[in-house]
Amino acid sequence: MIEKRVNIFEVGPRDGLQNESQTVPTSVKLQFIETLAQSGLKQIEATSFVHPKVIPQLADADELVKQLPKIPGVQFSALVPNEKGLERAAASGIKHIAVFTAASETFVQKNIRMTIAESLAEFQKVIPLAKPHGMDIRGYVSTGFVCPYEGNVPKEKVREVCEKLLEMGVSQISIGDTIGAAAPSDVQTTVGHILEKIPASKIALHFHDTYGTALANVYAALQLGITTFDTSAGGIGGCPYAPGAAGNLATEDLVYMLDRMGIQTGVDLQKVFEASNIIARALNRDLPSRQWNRLKSQST
Amino acid sequence: MIEKRVNIFEVGPRDGLQNESQTVPTSVKLQFIETLAQSGLKQIEATSFVHPKVIPQLADADELVKQLPKIPGVQFSALVPNEKGLERAAASGIKHIAVFTAASETFVQKNIRMTIAESLAEFQKVIPLAKPHGMDIRGYVSTGFVCPYEGNVPKEKVREVCEKLLEMGVSQISIGDTIGAAAPSDVQTTVGHILEKIPASKIALHFHDTYGTALANVYAALQLGITTFDTSAGGIGGCPYAPGAAGNLATEDLVYMLDRMGIQTGVDLQKVFEASNIIARALNRDLPSRQWNRLKSQST
Repeated sequence: MIEKRVNIFEVGPRDGLQNESQTVPTSVKLQFIETLAQSGLKQIEATSFVHPKVIPQLADADELVKQLPKIPGVQFSALVPNEKGLERAAASGIKHIAVFTAASETFVQKNIRMTIAESLAEFQKVIPLAKPHGMDIRGYVSTGFVCPYEGNVPKEKVREVCEKLLEMGVSQISIGDTIGAAAPSDVQTTVGHILEKIPASKIALHFHDTYGTALANVYAALQLGITTFDTSAGGIGGCPYAPGAAGNLATEDLVYMLDRMGIQTGVDLQKVFEASNIIARALNRDLPSRQWNRLKSQST
Repeated sequence: MIEKRVNIFEVGPRDGLQNESQTVPTSVKLQFIETLAQSGLKQIEATSFVHPKVIPQLADADELVKQLPKIPGVQFSALVPNEKGLERAAASGIKHIAVFTAASETFVQKNIRMTIAESLAEFQKVIPLAKPHGMDIRGYVSTGFVCPYEGNVPKEKVREVCEKLLEMGVSQISIGDTIGAAAPSDVQTTVGHILEKIPASKIALHFHDTYGTALANVYAALQLGITTFDTSAGGIGGCPYAPGAAGNLATEDLVYMLDRMGIQTGVDLQKVFEASNIIARALNRDLPSRQWNRLKSQST
């Protein structure tokens, strides 16, 4: 039984832009984010408080958060990697933060130079500091299906990391198919295993469309009762050196499919397209979303 | 219960190339087709015996069919629009032909200047002429879900056309999502309705990836017991004037997903990629397939 309402968690301004080689000016990011909010998206990850040297594309996080529009019902969030990041987040006034780990040791090691256990220990420090600020915390679990170094990731390992994050007070977990390699059978196996212990309302899925399977995976997840999906406008975040290579599942592509299936999202496809165009102009390139390309070919 | 074996019906040389603005030389087409056969594809639609003025890209059909390689277990087919086309097909020696109609009146009218009933009457003449040649006949039903002129196509109308084709002696029907607008819910509704009267073994599905939903639709169809899907190598057949706009579901994209799901196809992904590269070089452009782009970025 597929639910008739789905939440779309927009990660374009953070996960999308941090993976683009060009840095987009703060004013353009703000225009992008404001247009995304106008489309009806209620949860928008705006930036990341990682060290500016690590991700220079998001070095303007402090400044950006202070200028975010105040829109009733719209939640802006930021990634927080450590205590220093939390200090910056608290100073910025943001009320929704996210922490990041993965389900494969090699990936965590290469990405944040910690073991999974060390990353969880870091959250043990960060989360109690966040709570007094009234912050709500989301947890990302990357490589939830396939690791680029280790191959298939055991479902037991993914669930174990999810359970630990929930115990620490994370309100929702976003499980990522980081390299986009998962197929619907992986969703059934891994997400099915997780849902034996964790309610569907606590789980979001974060698909990449590298192999073209993202919407098939969404459909498999909908059948399991999942109702939150992460997407990025235009599918930004793909490798800009490989034309046509896809990044995050595109917001437009998900909205189209859900609209067609009679599943409500509250998101206006045309307005998301407008938001994506702001970024397409700033990056001066086409975006990977199928819908974006279709709408673009109709508008020219 | 999903079947563990799926047939892939390759339509790139016909449906792909007829929609490309450039005409590919016969020798290149033959190299393309031979490489496709080497990949393990057993059913390849090689060309069309439409009037050369209507589709100049396939004007070399007679010559091409005569030069097709003889490979045990590999079936080559050609589209036959009318009696004149059948004469040419018979003279060429091809043993598998396909006839073409649709489930929406306006689409058939604009495409072949007939009503659906008139197109079926034409098949009543063509099919008895084909049988003495030992020809096997496939039937295409376009706009099986959405018509670009009429919108949603009633499932009853699609089934009615399918039933008439089967009564005439067509061995398999390929139902097309011609503009790529269908979502998994459409597959459930329309294909579910058809399967109440027609066995799944008689039905193939022909998805386009214009809106990014093709693999999600395949997954929905697999769950209904469908085991034949039409694809084109590289996803050729998309509008070349809209970069990134997708045509037929790409053979590579389907093979990847089915491989990952443990569903056998007998098709080697890398070899299909090689075949697609022959066409990419001939057209001098990138192809829409996600897999093609991923493999290309890895190989450069």
